[in-house]
Amino acid sequence: MAPDDKVNPDDVQLQLREVEDLLRAARLDEESLRADGLGAAQRTVELADRAEILTMRQLLDALHPANVAFILEALPLGQRLFVWELVKAERDGEILLEVSDAVRESLIETMDRQELKAVAETLEADELADLAPDLPRAVFDEVFQSLDAEEQAQLRAAMSYPEDTVGALMRFDMVSVREDITLEVVLRYLRRFEALPDHTDQLFVVDRAGGLRGLLSLESLLTNDPERNVGELMSSDAIVSFEPIDDAHAAAQAFERYDLVSAPVVDGSHRVIGRLTVDAAVDYIREESAQEILNQAGLREEEDVFAGVWDSVRNRWGWLAVNMVTAIVASRVIGLFEQAIESLVALAALMPIVAGIGGNSGNQTITMIVRAIAMGQVETKALARLLRKEISVALLNGLFWGSVLGLFAWWLYDSVPLGLVMAAAMMLNLLLAAGAGVLIPMARIYFRRDPALGSSVLITGLTDSGGFFIFLGLATLFLL
Amino acid sequence: MAPDDKVNPDDVQLQLREVEDLLRAARLDEESLRADGLGAAQRTVELADRAEILTMRQLLDALHPANVAFILEALPLGQRLFVWELVKAERDGEILLEVSDAVRESLIETMDRQELKAVAETLEADELADLAPDLPRAVFDEVFQSLDAEEQAQLRAAMSYPEDTVGALMRFDMVSVREDITLEVVLRYLRRFEALPDHTDQLFVVDRAGGLRGLLSLESLLTNDPERNVGELMSSDAIVSFEPIDDAHAAAQAFERYDLVSAPVVDGSHRVIGRLTVDAAVDYIREESAQEILNQAGLREEEDVFAGVWDSVRNRWGWLAVNMVTAIVASRVIGLFEQAIESLVALAALMPIVAGIGGNSGNQTITMIVRAIAMGQVETKALARLLRKEISVALLNGLFWGSVLGLFAWWLYDSVPLGLVMAAAMMLNLLLAAGAGVLIPMARIYFRRDPALGSSVLITGLTDSGGFFIFLGLATLFLL
Repeated sequence: MAPDDKVNPDDVQLQLREVEDLLRAARLDEESLRADGLGAAQRTVELADRAEILTMRQLLDALHPANVAFILEALPLGQRLFVWELVKAERDGEILLEVSDAVRESLIETMDRQELKAVAETLEADELADLAPDLPRAVFDEVFQSLDAEEQAQLRAAMSYPEDTVGALMRFDMVSVREDITLEVVLRYLRRFEALPDHTDQLFVVDRAGGLRGLLSLESLLTNDPERNVGELMSSDAIVSFEPIDDAHAAAQAFERYDLVSAPVVDGSHRVIGRLTVDAAVDYIREESAQEILNQAGLREEEDVFAGVWDSVRNRWGWLAVNMVTAIVASRVIGLFEQAIESLVALAALMPIVAGIGGNSGNQTITMIVRAIAMGQVETKALARLLRKEISVALLNGLFWGSVLGLFAWWLYDSVPLGLVMAAAMMLNLLLAAGAGVLIPMARIYFRRDPALGSSVLITGLTDSGGFFIFLGLATLFLL
Repeated sequence: MAPDDKVNPDDVQLQLREVEDLLRAARLDEESLRADGLGAAQRTVELADRAEILTMRQLLDALHPANVAFILEALPLGQRLFVWELVKAERDGEILLEVSDAVRESLIETMDRQELKAVAETLEADELADLAPDLPRAVFDEVFQSLDAEEQAQLRAAMSYPEDTVGALMRFDMVSVREDITLEVVLRYLRRFEALPDHTDQLFVVDRAGGLRGLLSLESLLTNDPERNVGELMSSDAIVSFEPIDDAHAAAQAFERYDLVSAPVVDGSHRVIGRLTVDAAVDYIREESAQEILNQAGLREEEDVFAGVWDSVRNRWGWLAVNMVTAIVASRVIGLFEQAIESLVALAALMPIVAGIGGNSGNQTITMIVRAIAMGQVETKALARLLRKEISVALLNGLFWGSVLGLFAWWLYDSVPLGLVMAAAMMLNLLLAAGAGVLIPMARIYFRRDPALGSSVLITGLTDSGGFFIFLGLATLFLL
């Protein structure tokens, strides 16, 4: 793995720009490439001897797979496929593992059965498991047959665990030793390795049955007298280990909390079956928070920036539909009060303020609670206390913003009663927002649902309808 | 570092519950503790010999500092301070480093000058730099004086770098070797260490002047013949290194992209001055995405769930104010059309739909673009292409949702023209949302501003006012 000399913020950007310049120099603009659709392959063949193409090839070969992946992500489809053709076949695998799902699909679509088979055969069982969902069934079966019994078992295992479990993130390469040998023996044993598995910061000490007895850190291996025994130096009483069915979120948090680099994964009878490493934990953390951000904005999943229009539409469809329902409900609530509005049109101008600010402060509350839940700091029994706090915050905000907007309404329409109704409505809607902001996520965890999903759309829908109802209702009671 | 035996999702929760049960058993409920304010200290003394207290002490001593931190975060202020009193003084430092800023303040408030001084003296220069902002000036000065020249220099350096740079995240402990020695010599050298610095996966190979010549991974140290030279085994051509002024975001991305565990930090003349380690990168990634989520919801910073009401109010104030301004603008836009609404009150009921759906789809666009920018995949030159795509998505959505809602309006108010105005307004507002969703963040990066900050409030404000104006404007033109 050889990232280029000095990493600085513009690093990958520079490489990207280089590629783009070469594409321009070779007159391979997106439009023309798009024109002959997936003809990228032919194009590369025709142009193979062009100076720019040769330079591009060299450049790509020198790049870290993650950087090639980045460049592919950043290029529009036509150019992306052309560059993909230039990548050395034996590197396809590691690169496919680095790109986002959306981009991976676009690349795999262009590869024929033989290419895919060749790629799959370069991968480890756990890597293959990540790629499997995107592979044509036929290809996968062929590859599966070509594996030896152990690899087949590993692959079957890796694919059998649900997405958000440790099992889905674990890898199978590891180094284990016995406890009755000396460090000297361990050192000699390690010298027989060409290379150690990535992120090996500790060796697993196992008994004959493969049961985990303890961990020997490379640190203690290096800082202690070679004559000493593994048994006396291994840590055994305080091991962080996981089982494949453990929750990936909790595991990632453990990596963050205990600053782990790797941890053993054990089966029910405490036999070591694999490892979880920090790189997997980091990727998981990143994806998890990305998902949270996307859900908050009503997007189903990360989008390939250059995805076709249809993909984007599909990705955004769902939440827009939900949003339309809530919007229509809100609209019908207003419909109930059309007489009121007819006789006092100022209400129409003021009601969105009540709804809007209610929605915003409801989102503040619900986001805060959802995050606290995700951090594991809140349980349903804390409900009463949180409710009390959020209500007090709402009361203070209500007093302040309520008076400000009450005065605004009074000044604007020169009517004290209208000002008072405005103030009261603000206050009540903020209380509604606070209550719902706590109760919605709490109810969700009580019923074992994801408290984050769509919380923002729900709360906004509620504070809109609620705000309109409260404001127009009060107006009807006291102004007409 | 001794986290308890088996880590599973409920792990820390269990410890938390144990502590809570003990507090209950000792009749130390939040209310009574809150009552005698910061009297936690006295209380602990009085109760020191109580069985529950002794058990609690033992429990806490056995816990990983990160878990103690977690428990402190999860307890309401009164109980939190009581438990804090029970923690062994010499562990205060490592625990203060683990808790969130909000909680850290609440803990430090209760400690007197001597305690704080004692704590500070147990910390490394880089750790001290993290704590410094929360320490009383006087305490900090005293501690600073007590440091030796090198530590003072390191501390001054660490504190001199702005928050989001590598310098602010780097640490100073590292192991460096010369290239002209054999692995055997390195191995003997390492045996002289009590322990290696955390996350040492590679040794820094330096020349007499301390200039970075290459990196020797523990892997190659362990897998190669001890007779061979460091020089021939070190990797030197493809080193990922940072400078203190490098952007922390880019550095964290590099850790993620290249699966790094540690990387050297060098000064202008390529001398090694420190290390960046994966645990710091992970924390940075986590905080960064937390911040993004909070900003999206209009919160300034992470809140201590049990923070006083006032702290919460202050934290949420800012965005509510911005939101009020946009809401008032929207309200004034409606004000312009009061005649129209008076003569056709249906408009009042329908206008929030146009605004609401526009806001939602605008948020989808802006979130997508902001994320792509953060991933470094989009530059201002991509503007035209992105705009074209988002506009097409908006056209499709406009056609669909526009017709749906047009029909809805027609059916509801049995007026074809109203239905057509509704449909047209939907379409136009979705186009406005798409355009703004691309242009706002793009303009932000063009002017070197953070594209994420408040983007949601901005776009919603725009689509509200815009939606009302378009819908009511069209209505005035064609219906009255």
